[in-house]
Amino acid sequence: MTDDARHMAHALRLGRRGMGQCWPNPAVGCVIVREGRVVGRGWTQPGGRPHAEPVALAQAGEAARGATAYVTLEPCAHHGQTPPCATALAEAGIARVVAPLADRDPRVSGKGFEMLRRRGIEVTTGILAEEAARDHSGFFLRIGQGRPHVTLKLASSFDGRIATATGESRWITGPEARAVVHALRASHDAVMVGAGTARADDPDLTVRGWGPRRQPVRVVVSRLIDVPLMSRLAASARDVPVWLVHGRDAPVQTRRAWESCGARLLPCALTGGRIDPAALLSGLAAEGLTRVFCEGGGQLAASLLGADLVDELVGFTAGVALGAEGRPGIGALGIDRLAEAPRFTLAETRVVGADVMHRWHRRAA
Amino acid sequence: MTDDARHMAHALRLGRRGMGQCWPNPAVGCVIVREGRVVGRGWTQPGGRPHAEPVALAQAGEAARGATAYVTLEPCAHHGQTPPCATALAEAGIARVVAPLADRDPRVSGKGFEMLRRRGIEVTTGILAEEAARDHSGFFLRIGQGRPHVTLKLASSFDGRIATATGESRWITGPEARAVVHALRASHDAVMVGAGTARADDPDLTVRGWGPRRQPVRVVVSRLIDVPLMSRLAASARDVPVWLVHGRDAPVQTRRAWESCGARLLPCALTGGRIDPAALLSGLAAEGLTRVFCEGGGQLAASLLGADLVDELVGFTAGVALGAEGRPGIGALGIDRLAEAPRFTLAETRVVGADVMHRWHRRAA
Repeated sequence: MTDDARHMAHALRLGRRGMGQCWPNPAVGCVIVREGRVVGRGWTQPGGRPHAEPVALAQAGEAARGATAYVTLEPCAHHGQTPPCATALAEAGIARVVAPLADRDPRVSGKGFEMLRRRGIEVTTGILAEEAARDHSGFFLRIGQGRPHVTLKLASSFDGRIATATGESRWITGPEARAVVHALRASHDAVMVGAGTARADDPDLTVRGWGPRRQPVRVVVSRLIDVPLMSRLAASARDVPVWLVHGRDAPVQTRRAWESCGARLLPCALTGGRIDPAALLSGLAAEGLTRVFCEGGGQLAASLLGADLVDELVGFTAGVALGAEGRPGIGALGIDRLAEAPRFTLAETRVVGADVMHRWHRRAA
Repeated sequence: MTDDARHMAHALRLGRRGMGQCWPNPAVGCVIVREGRVVGRGWTQPGGRPHAEPVALAQAGEAARGATAYVTLEPCAHHGQTPPCATALAEAGIARVVAPLADRDPRVSGKGFEMLRRRGIEVTTGILAEEAARDHSGFFLRIGQGRPHVTLKLASSFDGRIATATGESRWITGPEARAVVHALRASHDAVMVGAGTARADDPDLTVRGWGPRRQPVRVVVSRLIDVPLMSRLAASARDVPVWLVHGRDAPVQTRRAWESCGARLLPCALTGGRIDPAALLSGLAAEGLTRVFCEGGGQLAASLLGADLVDELVGFTAGVALGAEGRPGIGALGIDRLAEAPRFTLAETRVVGADVMHRWHRRAA
């Protein structure tokens, strides 16, 4: 690994600290290196401001003069609430900027690099571009396709069941797997479930055990808002956002009641009598979400998979067998032939407590 | 790791080479070490004879004098077709024998160690006893409980399905996973399937791609012998054994036809109209089998799991989703509460080609 790649990997790790915390902005990392020594580190702060570069520059101070800045995305070039980062880097005396790839935001794309070069700063691109594209996937999808990155989680028995026939699901996987699920929630902008899951488990869907942080939005998908008002979600809707995605035929009094609890209502188009998955996601992207963590149930999971809208799968497999009468983790997909089935590529597998975790990425088309 | 443990680990690795090859005998390994140097290595040979000790002693020759023998099971003390290994070790001049644990065969148990000690040989036991007990599990279960060790394999989609609704199952997992399945078959005395699997896939259930070796017995479980005679199993029954475990009500002409193909017929008791899983396994152990590899289908798997007769689970998970209408890998277990579900402990997880492999052991009672 070259020095450039090593510093960029460091910047990517820093950038990931902001994931789930800084939407609608991308989670960027920045490392400033002078004569081989790291003199400044920064990442996009909660809410999306300040950006990673000014944080790292402030830490570096005078040491930034003549230094190299490793930034995980093209520095911004447009005047928003603050001056552009490209200007800030130039004014601090940075001699060289290394970035994996250009931004895809049309206000920035190519302009940040151009602004830097015009100020006599050397610009190197392409280093760890694939990793960076993966990290920024949610931001790029929102900009390019108007939908967030979707991660689908399945915590199941050895034979793929998420609950017994009677609906018992606590706890198939162990406490270590649940802790990882909380970390995954924290790295997403929103946690999303269908109404069945919201009813069955009365979950609060918050991040616990990882210190104080910006909580992910709780998204519940339910055509008729079929979720009890006597629930943890309703009780906590003023503290942590609850967004209800519903059909336009949801009863008005139910909508009113949820609004008065503090929930936000997002009407959505239907397909075949159910919330349309593409419309669902474009609605969430329009609200600024870049990364959505779907925790079921089977019907919502099947609807997203069936429409090829899942970017990442995370499985937790427990050493327990529940048998064919247990509840399936993914509902009916209408697949007859294996060739039609959505395929994913293994990214990682590891032992988490008593369970196996496996992560998969959407197979490149 | 001490020198003793290191040499014993070596002997265990050698012993595993005989797994699936030497039933009804245990697969034992032996390493002879003199002044820190390995002078002889041996393992139980195909068919169970010669034992590991004489093979290693022959290799060591005169170097065995004053040496230490690491044997993965208590050396035998009874005169069978050949003189006992305890005698052979003593006569070769071995000064010390290290073994993890005593044999559980009543003809041997404790007597081998006693015979060695009487001849002035130092005996050390207890080293890597747990690993050795696991390796000899099939032999010990046959001796102690009259049944073989059962490994259950499940190659499934991310959501636990082994075939599409139309029965398509080739290939959910990739070629690397299939190669591992062949290695697993090779390390078992028999491969076992239910009639549904035998009908659906017309499998030949042999070991391919691992060189010439003793093939595992192919066991098909079917109350009424509901397997077509125009099948690969029937066509190859004279080359590689086929054992049909059936109910006493199986049609006589079907039995005759299979016998004339070269298959062996094993009548078995029924429970609730199906082959009784305990009777099935005791029948197989009576024939000498110590390790059985069950490759489905769902009903046979459920019957074994439901009777708590599965010692090891091997899962292969592919990055594909088949949805709830896909076929389940494990049939109905009749479990209502999670606490009743059979639990297993993770032994290993690793990447195999594009798939995840995970191995689990029966949870100690």
